Amino acid sequence: MIKYNYLLRCISCGKEYSPEEVEYTCPDCGPRLGTLEVIYDFSILKKRLKDARWSTFSERGIWQFSDLLPLPENFDELIPPLLVGNTPLYRADKIAGKYGVAEVLVKDDGRNPTASFKDRASALAVVKAKEKGYNTVFCASTGNAASSLAGLTAAAGLKSVIFVPASAPAAKLTQLQVYGAKVLAIDGSYDEAFDISMIVGMEKGWYCRNSAINPYLLEGKKTGALELAVQTGMDLPDFVFVSVGDGTVLSSFYKAFMDLKELGIIERIPTIVGVQAENASAIIDTYERGEPFTPADLDAHSVADSIAVGKPRDVIKACKYTKKNGGLFVKVSDKEILDSIIELARGTGVFAEPAGATAFAGFKRMKSLGQISESARVALIVTGNGLKDLKAPARVLEELKKLPANVEKIREGLDEDKL
Amino acid sequence: MIKYNYLLRCISCGKEYSPEEVEYTCPDCGPRLGTLEVIYDFSILKKRLKDARWSTFSERGIWQFSDLLPLPENFDELIPPLLVGNTPLYRADKIAGKYGVAEVLVKDDGRNPTASFKDRASALAVVKAKEKGYNTVFCASTGNAASSLAGLTAAAGLKSVIFVPASAPAAKLTQLQVYGAKVLAIDGSYDEAFDISMIVGMEKGWYCRNSAINPYLLEGKKTGALELAVQTGMDLPDFVFVSVGDGTVLSSFYKAFMDLKELGIIERIPTIVGVQAENASAIIDTYERGEPFTPADLDAHSVADSIAVGKPRDVIKACKYTKKNGGLFVKVSDKEILDSIIELARGTGVFAEPAGATAFAGFKRMKSLGQISESARVALIVTGNGLKDLKAPARVLEELKKLPANVEKIREGLDEDKL
Repeated sequence: MIKYNYLLRCISCGKEYSPEEVEYTCPDCGPRLGTLEVIYDFSILKKRLKDARWSTFSERGIWQFSDLLPLPENFDELIPPLLVGNTPLYRADKIAGKYGVAEVLVKDDGRNPTASFKDRASALAVVKAKEKGYNTVFCASTGNAASSLAGLTAAAGLKSVIFVPASAPAAKLTQLQVYGAKVLAIDGSYDEAFDISMIVGMEKGWYCRNSAINPYLLEGKKTGALELAVQTGMDLPDFVFVSVGDGTVLSSFYKAFMDLKELGIIERIPTIVGVQAENASAIIDTYERGEPFTPADLDAHSVADSIAVGKPRDVIKACKYTKKNGGLFVKVSDKEILDSIIELARGTGVFAEPAGATAFAGFKRMKSLGQISESARVALIVTGNGLKDLKAPARVLEELKKLPANVEKIREGLDEDKL
Repeated sequence: MIKYNYLLRCISCGKEYSPEEVEYTCPDCGPRLGTLEVIYDFSILKKRLKDARWSTFSERGIWQFSDLLPLPENFDELIPPLLVGNTPLYRADKIAGKYGVAEVLVKDDGRNPTASFKDRASALAVVKAKEKGYNTVFCASTGNAASSLAGLTAAAGLKSVIFVPASAPAAKLTQLQVYGAKVLAIDGSYDEAFDISMIVGMEKGWYCRNSAINPYLLEGKKTGALELAVQTGMDLPDFVFVSVGDGTVLSSFYKAFMDLKELGIIERIPTIVGVQAENASAIIDTYERGEPFTPADLDAHSVADSIAVGKPRDVIKACKYTKKNGGLFVKVSDKEILDSIIELARGTGVFAEPAGATAFAGFKRMKSLGQISESARVALIVTGNGLKDLKAPARVLEELKKLPANVEKIREGLDEDKL
């Protein structure tokens, strides 16, 4: 019998399970309320960590944090052969100066292999699928989770099946097909696709990479926060801004910092600010209802498609972790998100997709509300590359005028623009 | 007076210039034939290199090779604050097995900050612009060179002006605008935009980042080959496949290996295979005419937009370097390029833009021609990310059928597919 150094605990009822006993969610509380936490045996971890050498820049990517992940002994043989994580952290001095704070750090997770933060989770899903002997992995998603799963399974020699609403943008579907995923384009909403995926995928005996349902995804996402900790020399910023859709990315930041604190590596958990779009604020709405948290589902709309989630699948964990750690939430408008894409790209050279720039929009909103002091150090998590959605920023850009192929006319135009 | 450890030499007449004397091309031979090489004082380089420590994975990106680049003493203060280079090199064992060669390596340069190899050149352009006191940089381009320049100048606090044909894809123009570039959309061909850029840009006193015209761009691109050398422990593969448009990327691979050989670091220069699209083969056509090389311009068409160049601006250098080093060329069809995108993505998880997958198409063509032995070790240079052009692969993918939101129907469909 394999010995595990972790167990699984229900976020709602607190019941604990061994990893062999339960695969996805708490049987008592169900898939919505009963998402599971991975709880480590910290006495084992502390011993292991004596030899751990974390690098600000690791050729192993996220796997340098293997001691803090729920991995089997032979995980090295199971990891997909793409470099996941190890994304750059930039100092954005121009932006810090403009908004009057001590430091702004930008973590560009669009530099992952399929260009989003989600690769951190899909990488764990691949290892777990292989550990458990699956050769097909499924998920319901229209976006980054799907392309990430398709890319990483292709690299690892596994099959993937993706359930998407047929209304998803053609370009995103193309990317999935390129990687060789089986794409099921369903004439229905994302929620319908999700529910169908849970029935059919389970029947077929495929491994499930649906957000929140699979407890290991959050642990993979945790590596983003672990990198931030290492890259700042464990001198974490005062505020970490992160966009929130289904809640798992947000929770992964809390979980990483809670694990580090439990291990005595950090003393203080930064104030994490979850940022949602105004018309896709199901988690904030749930949080504001107070405890015990019950999901406040809604019909979500936002230009930031990656976080336009009406029925967030990890809402309880997100709310409980925020409450426990004194975290904050803020809402921003679609206009603020789009403007933030432009301002971030021009100020730092980092081109973010809408959900990626949402963190920056949240920072500006909180600053304008007087919630952030001049001495504050701030980190913004950019969760996806702007190349994933070129139509969104076009909405707030001036239309280009066509110029005649005539030197004289071009000169005149430039003179008018004082260039 | 500043002392330089390099001089500039005309590729056609061989005349040498100091860097203060000439900025772009040989005054005697003109901009087309008189592109310049950067020639180092190897006695100085050898001394410096005694202390050099190159890493297979460097937090400094391309700047770890500063000793082999034409940089001023204070270059550290001038480099743009984005991580350029240090892109992963993957072993593609599945592909090596399928095609019966000893090893296939894939260098994924789509992992650069603006998602293409061109960032290596733009980074040098930024340093040189700052060294020389310019605050605006221009180029003519519809594609990767433009977005790369726009992104890196934004990060560095410089202005950029981009001359493009107005017919360029809207998405590519959006990316430029997002970064804050001044975009001049000219109602004419790329060649017209190029010629207008040379007149207007020079008049305005802006720094020129036009391929081949600026001798330092090739040196920046050289870092791709230097990384390959370091990542293989200086045990270079037998063949390096690289797609060819204007010729500078190809020449940069020769130049890097020639520099390393001159320094005594490597003994042998790999067989570099330049791959062009069948209807955009101006460099191959020029090469086949024989010496003295004279440009064989044509009206270029290819699905690989980044290499659809009819009037290559660095053709002489590309042909001379190929001749000198016993390099090879091969042409591939658009269909082979598109199929290679799919096969590469499914076989490795690396999603390439058409020009990026062209290297792989060239390898397969050469293999089928019996030009590559079973014991060969091969490297494929993927020069750009597939997210840059999602329409191209869609041309060879099956159209998705819309499925009813009905579990029973979906089950039936999967059973038919034997999934």
